[in-house]
Amino acid sequence: MRNNWIPEIEAALHQYLAPPQTAYRRAAEAMAYSAEAGGKRLRPTFVLEFCKLASGDPQKAMAFACAVEMIHTYSLIHDDLPCMDNDDFRRGRPSCHKQFDEATALLAGDALLTRAFETLTDAPLSPEQIAKAVCVLAKCSGINGMVGGQVMDLQNETEAPSAEILNRTYELKTGALIQAACMLGVIAGNSNDKLLEDAREYGLYLGLAFQIIDDILDVSGDETLLGKPVGSDAANGKHTFVTVYGMEKSREMAAQYTQKALTIIQAYPDSESLTELTRELLVRKY
Amino acid sequence: MRNNWIPEIEAALHQYLAPPQTAYRRAAEAMAYSAEAGGKRLRPTFVLEFCKLASGDPQKAMAFACAVEMIHTYSLIHDDLPCMDNDDFRRGRPSCHKQFDEATALLAGDALLTRAFETLTDAPLSPEQIAKAVCVLAKCSGINGMVGGQVMDLQNETEAPSAEILNRTYELKTGALIQAACMLGVIAGNSNDKLLEDAREYGLYLGLAFQIIDDILDVSGDETLLGKPVGSDAANGKHTFVTVYGMEKSREMAAQYTQKALTIIQAYPDSESLTELTRELLVRKY
Repeated sequence: MRNNWIPEIEAALHQYLAPPQTAYRRAAEAMAYSAEAGGKRLRPTFVLEFCKLASGDPQKAMAFACAVEMIHTYSLIHDDLPCMDNDDFRRGRPSCHKQFDEATALLAGDALLTRAFETLTDAPLSPEQIAKAVCVLAKCSGINGMVGGQVMDLQNETEAPSAEILNRTYELKTGALIQAACMLGVIAGNSNDKLLEDAREYGLYLGLAFQIIDDILDVSGDETLLGKPVGSDAANGKHTFVTVYGMEKSREMAAQYTQKALTIIQAYPDSESLTELTRELLVRKY
Repeated sequence: MRNNWIPEIEAALHQYLAPPQTAYRRAAEAMAYSAEAGGKRLRPTFVLEFCKLASGDPQKAMAFACAVEMIHTYSLIHDDLPCMDNDDFRRGRPSCHKQFDEATALLAGDALLTRAFETLTDAPLSPEQIAKAVCVLAKCSGINGMVGGQVMDLQNETEAPSAEILNRTYELKTGALIQAACMLGVIAGNSNDKLLEDAREYGLYLGLAFQIIDDILDVSGDETLLGKPVGSDAANGKHTFVTVYGMEKSREMAAQYTQKALTIIQAYPDSESLTELTRELLVRKY
């Protein structure tokens, strides 16, 4: 999967998160360790691509892009903790609490979450755009967004969810932050409400497709490419799209959601790179 | 200690945190459980009092006040977790992870932190004021503020801090969020930079005095009034102002910092209630 934005995103992230020489350097190093662990940088890429779609300057959206990636990173750190998924590895390296310790990982996650909102205010944009971005990012990543989805995800381990509940879990757990990313791009581009609504809808469908493919890869993926063991969902007794709908139907649904996402953006000029990215995500191997 | 703001603050907090009827209600209940556990409501009170000092309308600062209290509450929830201070009780009730469970407490903390920033954007103030408040609150509560102080606090359990390090720990751990509270009040009152700087300095001194008195109460306080066992610092082998300077010298320093704080605000008209609160905090029993 080609993504030409990655070097610029990682350079900006690095600048925001370079650990200072202080007495609390250890936690700052943990923040950087997790944020600089690579990954597809998908969410910040959506910020920049939607800014382009809104005829904005992606450079001015870079702070928003980094903020969304910080939220994503904190959620992974906290998700890996022993009281949550208890995962020792992430992207082929020890997870944050294994590399450092639990208290440091907890605080590094808290600090990344907080730094995300500080970073939004660093964008070279108007106070109106910044305040709107804070509101959207907080709503999408909080209790009625991503965190709510994580709560549902934990509940789905102990009780089998209905199809409706499973769908809602994925919308919140994965879709909400992707929606925020797309919407923040539009806000940075200062575009109209129609595109903002389209960004929200694209993010919803793309998020669903993305999570379903995650489920599929957890069953049939290549451990070396994924950087983590396959079969962890089954080992945790987790109910996923694959366990509920089966492999074939899940592939079909991922393709359908991807098509819905594509339909939304194809009306816009300058949507080639976003279209290509959307298509590649459907056939991704990691 | 009288605080006439408490009923209004608690009514506003309750409105922001009423758990919705959703599949993730359990975590929303955990948020409300911890936020509605009472306490002195000191930080939101500082927001409202400094707004008054800035000749602003405290009602318009209520969202800022609630946001600061949410940050304070999340920090207590995460601080009580087993990997941190491992405290089973808080304000005379089971701590959040004992009442619910660790995963729920972790996520409730994350959600309160996030909701704090969403709540700032709900204030009936200009986008300039909101963006400035986001920046100040994030800086003061993140890695270079409160969270940095928590990291240092943990380190002070294993290695004896110098007087300088201990002072810096208290400035960050306790002072930074109180500074944010005072500054957010001034921002809500749309006052000048002089008062903003005075609010920052007042918060620093008041925060130091407050934390030193906490240390003193942990040795000599009344368990019933405090709602928690005394002697926990000593049991944890924690280095505090009392262990480093002794009881008498600590009392003296708390009085000196309080006097410095009082000197800053006495120049302002309408500072009677803030002066009274500042004085009462020095002789508080809980």
